[in-house]
Amino acid sequence: MKRLNKVTIVGVGLIGGSIGLDIRAKRLAKEVVGLGRRKSSVKKALEMGTITKGTLNIGEGVRDADLVIMATPVLSIPKLVKKMAPYLKRGCLITDVGSVKEGLIRDIERVLPKGVEFIGGHPMAGSEQRGVAKARRGLFKDSICFITRSRRTPLSSLREIVSFWKALGAMVVTLSPAAHDMIVSEISHLPHMIIFALLSGVEPGSLKFASTGFKDTTRIAASEANIWKDIGIANKREILKSIAKFNRSLGKIERALKREDSAALIKIFTRARMKRAKI
Amino acid sequence: MKRLNKVTIVGVGLIGGSIGLDIRAKRLAKEVVGLGRRKSSVKKALEMGTITKGTLNIGEGVRDADLVIMATPVLSIPKLVKKMAPYLKRGCLITDVGSVKEGLIRDIERVLPKGVEFIGGHPMAGSEQRGVAKARRGLFKDSICFITRSRRTPLSSLREIVSFWKALGAMVVTLSPAAHDMIVSEISHLPHMIIFALLSGVEPGSLKFASTGFKDTTRIAASEANIWKDIGIANKREILKSIAKFNRSLGKIERALKREDSAALIKIFTRARMKRAKI
Repeated sequence: MKRLNKVTIVGVGLIGGSIGLDIRAKRLAKEVVGLGRRKSSVKKALEMGTITKGTLNIGEGVRDADLVIMATPVLSIPKLVKKMAPYLKRGCLITDVGSVKEGLIRDIERVLPKGVEFIGGHPMAGSEQRGVAKARRGLFKDSICFITRSRRTPLSSLREIVSFWKALGAMVVTLSPAAHDMIVSEISHLPHMIIFALLSGVEPGSLKFASTGFKDTTRIAASEANIWKDIGIANKREILKSIAKFNRSLGKIERALKREDSAALIKIFTRARMKRAKI
Repeated sequence: MKRLNKVTIVGVGLIGGSIGLDIRAKRLAKEVVGLGRRKSSVKKALEMGTITKGTLNIGEGVRDADLVIMATPVLSIPKLVKKMAPYLKRGCLITDVGSVKEGLIRDIERVLPKGVEFIGGHPMAGSEQRGVAKARRGLFKDSICFITRSRRTPLSSLREIVSFWKALGAMVVTLSPAAHDMIVSEISHLPHMIIFALLSGVEPGSLKFASTGFKDTTRIAASEANIWKDIGIANKREILKSIAKFNRSLGKIERALKREDSAALIKIFTRARMKRAKI
């Protein structure tokens, strides 16, 4: 991709900070501005070299930017884009790293100024950790990055965002916002909801006997509540469908246990095992 | 513990084989006999040095044994003990490594010959892997091993089994069979049922986008179907209770998503996160 003059990262946490480190290391832009909400995290982001300049001021942050990367909780994105709109230059591209696409893209496109495009992005990297202190170079290398294409997305803008993520080493998968939301509901949002529910029910007295298996299974529950509240609400339609499907599967196991139906249990467990083996 | 003459391990897989390696390395017994069902796995167990002698013959396997360790799927244990009974010497101790205790101990005690005691054991080690090829020394070091005490358990026999597991480096927790089954239902059996159900419902097309989070969450589903069919049936009462409790928690999340109730979601997710942090 051609070198950019100014990239603005809105929200310099684990993901935003790691993007900044890669942009700088790979010299993809002359200036990498971090737009934050708290002085302390912007300062930390600067100290770590994830950005070349930090600010809490929206106008200063996005003015003249060629590329704006939204790395804040999903429900905040449409609101922030609306606030930025007056300061964005024509030809500016906006992208994001959020876990939900369809409804949000509709909301974002409604507030985009003329000459500015939004392309949805979702790198499947990061972890249950958070904060710029956990940012690192190469976080996206060999990981999947979803790029969504809505009806109004110009092909040239899509290509620029695809090149950007490829430059960061990601394996780009382009798909529709609806397909994206269905897939991530199944492989990420539903598992989170299930594990949150699992931990909610466990007696604190039992927890001290947790083995490696339990620890691995529940690691994702250490994720930040506010981020997941946003994801849950923004993708509730797909998540509720996934939960309904999951409930049917668990109901089958429940009935097989009640009947002590060995054949049914072996069938369900074996099918699950074989699906797991495919990953 | 005092050195034993003959220990017999029934079922020389990952757990049985690892016990054998430790007994031999720590010289806890003169003879370590492996009793198996298949020639090939007994041969492999011998080659790996997990046992000093292997056999497929029950009488030969358990005759004169001071300690018999059952390391086979839980539902097979009472049947096997019944078959062994005629060959066991007075003073022989039997223990196991199974994941379920209450109902099984009742069934086992019914078929024990006079002068032979059974003490339930359950080392919380191993993984979703299986087979003697995965056996290793030190598997139980610093891991929890539950030892259960039923009404008829003599204190001296209990002490011997506790010493045995301590000699293998395990942290021994003594409790009643009922308490054991409740705890493991919550921290092991329920998570397995949930993850089996999760994988059952996932579209195969979505699986190829699974990230590290999904992989860790579902690792336990690679466990062997037959072992889990046995555990499910043997502990169905506790597991069905755990599933009912889990369903109530997931129902709360479902309703909060439907209502877009941010406060309720944050409360549930935060509580889950804090419980996870305690592990």
